[in-house]
Amino acid sequence: MTPVPDAVELIRAKRDGRALTGTEISWLISAYTDGAIADEQMSAMAMAIYFRGLDPAELRAWTAAMVSSGERLDLSGVPLPTVDKHSTGGVGDKVSLVLAPLVASCGAAVPHLSGRGLGHTGGTLDKLESIPGWRAMLQAAEMTAVLADTGCVICTAGPGLAPADRKLYALRDVTGTVESIPLIASSIMSKKIAEGTAALVLDVKVGSGAFMQQMADARELAQTMVRLGAEQGVRTIALLTGMDTPLGRAVGNAVEVAEAVAVLRGKGPPDLTEVTLALAREMLLLAGLDADPAAALADGRAMARYRRMIAAQGGDPDAPLPQAARTEVVTAEAAGFVHRLDARAVGVAAWRLGAGRARKEDPVSAAAGIICLAKPGERVERGQPVLELRGDHDGRFSRARAALAGAIEIAARPPAVRPSVLGRTGL
Amino acid sequence: MTPVPDAVELIRAKRDGRALTGTEISWLISAYTDGAIADEQMSAMAMAIYFRGLDPAELRAWTAAMVSSGERLDLSGVPLPTVDKHSTGGVGDKVSLVLAPLVASCGAAVPHLSGRGLGHTGGTLDKLESIPGWRAMLQAAEMTAVLADTGCVICTAGPGLAPADRKLYALRDVTGTVESIPLIASSIMSKKIAEGTAALVLDVKVGSGAFMQQMADARELAQTMVRLGAEQGVRTIALLTGMDTPLGRAVGNAVEVAEAVAVLRGKGPPDLTEVTLALAREMLLLAGLDADPAAALADGRAMARYRRMIAAQGGDPDAPLPQAARTEVVTAEAAGFVHRLDARAVGVAAWRLGAGRARKEDPVSAAAGIICLAKPGERVERGQPVLELRGDHDGRFSRARAALAGAIEIAARPPAVRPSVLGRTGL
Repeated sequence: MTPVPDAVELIRAKRDGRALTGTEISWLISAYTDGAIADEQMSAMAMAIYFRGLDPAELRAWTAAMVSSGERLDLSGVPLPTVDKHSTGGVGDKVSLVLAPLVASCGAAVPHLSGRGLGHTGGTLDKLESIPGWRAMLQAAEMTAVLADTGCVICTAGPGLAPADRKLYALRDVTGTVESIPLIASSIMSKKIAEGTAALVLDVKVGSGAFMQQMADARELAQTMVRLGAEQGVRTIALLTGMDTPLGRAVGNAVEVAEAVAVLRGKGPPDLTEVTLALAREMLLLAGLDADPAAALADGRAMARYRRMIAAQGGDPDAPLPQAARTEVVTAEAAGFVHRLDARAVGVAAWRLGAGRARKEDPVSAAAGIICLAKPGERVERGQPVLELRGDHDGRFSRARAALAGAIEIAARPPAVRPSVLGRTGL
Repeated sequence: MTPVPDAVELIRAKRDGRALTGTEISWLISAYTDGAIADEQMSAMAMAIYFRGLDPAELRAWTAAMVSSGERLDLSGVPLPTVDKHSTGGVGDKVSLVLAPLVASCGAAVPHLSGRGLGHTGGTLDKLESIPGWRAMLQAAEMTAVLADTGCVICTAGPGLAPADRKLYALRDVTGTVESIPLIASSIMSKKIAEGTAALVLDVKVGSGAFMQQMADARELAQTMVRLGAEQGVRTIALLTGMDTPLGRAVGNAVEVAEAVAVLRGKGPPDLTEVTLALAREMLLLAGLDADPAAALADGRAMARYRRMIAAQGGDPDAPLPQAARTEVVTAEAAGFVHRLDARAVGVAAWRLGAGRARKEDPVSAAAGIICLAKPGERVERGQPVLELRGDHDGRFSRARAALAGAIEIAARPPAVRPSVLGRTGL
């Protein structure tokens, strides 16, 4: 008798702290993708991994198996160096909208396959879909054509890319097994490796509005992903950036597109511009290009590239963006300096206003969102508006306000200034 | 909005070490029984419980919710004190076959709802079904009638008893979440509480052939179950008994029935008789009866009661039992004293000969099994038969022998004598 791996034996092994072999992991992921291993077995395995972790060899095999569960895009026909960015998700994080055309305008090709938002952090595709006519779903040939023509493309990952991750992510979402560093790292990296990019810059967010709230966890996630990228032949580095307060001033969909356009015009908020340029510099470095992204912003090259990219995917960059039916403000309860404007609370409030979705199949409101009229470090008078809430339905505002209880702290002295980029992790 | 418990929130709470409230647990078990909580969510919860445990209040609520998921039998119409026994399962454990009629013959009523074997430990119902005509499946009214008429009944638990446990046990079996003391304790106790017995003696087996291989684990399981019984109004105590070697000499189905009958004739093996009498004394004590079970064995009262019980369920106590088509022996490799005859190995070998089932839907062979011709402490000559293997199919013997590799140890001096009863746990 040849030894056939058995799902229950593998679950028990992981549960009891034994490392799984490459063969076992490869069988497990493949059998799960095919349906031979049931969801209830994989969720028990995921929970055992939550408690026991995966060692570097296991994680390498796990990630490789997820990549192998589907196709790996071949971008070798693209005549430019390919480089992409992935963010672990934050509130007001519209960086990709600027970064893809910015880096493309400096000579790289950016094949940015992205996802939709779930929970209090928005999704890049949801934001771009507030532009009339813009399409997120491209066929493979169409995607390559847009990439060849404009040097960048932002679109959905097709169902053929890392299908094991698609299935496992949906399972983890309903079984309380999302918060596991090896499972997060392999999920992100399997998709990015399958995407075919030669280089990758990770933006690992840390703070109240991020997945990782502790610096140590963020650093571990960053190191894990950088190692996985290198093992699979993708040059990878990570920046750790702050997410205690929203990035920029706009949180939502259309409002974030408008702010991204402001950055491209050279008139964006300083924190957002700083993070965008830091990521752009890392991407260009990995792509082997000696170019100054700040110059590409200043001279309008990045903006021109953005307009071409939007138009190539059916969008009208000059069309007016949707406007909310109603706005309300949240005012300062005292005079002083804004000390804290909690990212998570603002994210949840924008979500409740309609900017995000509770379930995958829900639609989002293009116009709903929040504008941060005052940010940490800025002075306000008592009664001065700090937040502007935008929404389509009256009923949503009171729930949004409830999420903001305690989110704004005002003090007599200005807070210490924290840099936007907190660290860098390379091999 | 009223707060509705959410499965994912409860899984995450348990995963992160927060105790669940009684309301949350009650909702969880009820929603799982109804299908509102999916199997993949419950298996993740079971794995989180494997790692985090359940505190006494949680376990009490969990067990109560499992009982409440179905009906609780009302035995108040039975004019005798009710008392039952449950064993955590061992190799050669045919105690129930003797114990139910023995205790009944001393004046108690024994409503013994039992299960089938899975894996290397046999099931009481499988054993009794080797008696021609005997039926395990009784309607509720029939069960009560047999109990009223003979003072004892051994039959299947109907589907209405603790259905949550039925569903959860099947799930744990395929998700590597069986080995959790709170889940084992609540599974056993929910069925016994629902059965309606007023008192319960637990036989917690410890040793190589048992579920619990360490004394500390066995003691913890015993204490947990005794507490759960008391909390639900069932007077409960536990004996810890050894399971390093098979109980008695016979392991299988028909062979165990024959050995049980030998005990009832006063001619059973000493270890089996000792454990049976120890459990009988505890049961009679809990039932408030001042009777000597050894006398009931000696004067034939227990045997008469056994014959009535078998006949009441359609069995012919005088019919010849099925005989195996083929036997083989395993002989001693050296002269000396048997030091070790490993319970687990003998159990697995008997299972492979056909006495047990690999999947719930498999049939078992009535005749297959093993006779231990020499047991620990007994002297053997080189080449003398130690085990007699019985089976219906030639092909099964070599696999059975493979399971027995290293199972027999022979030494020059006799081993230290260990008592059969290792401890007692009461409130």
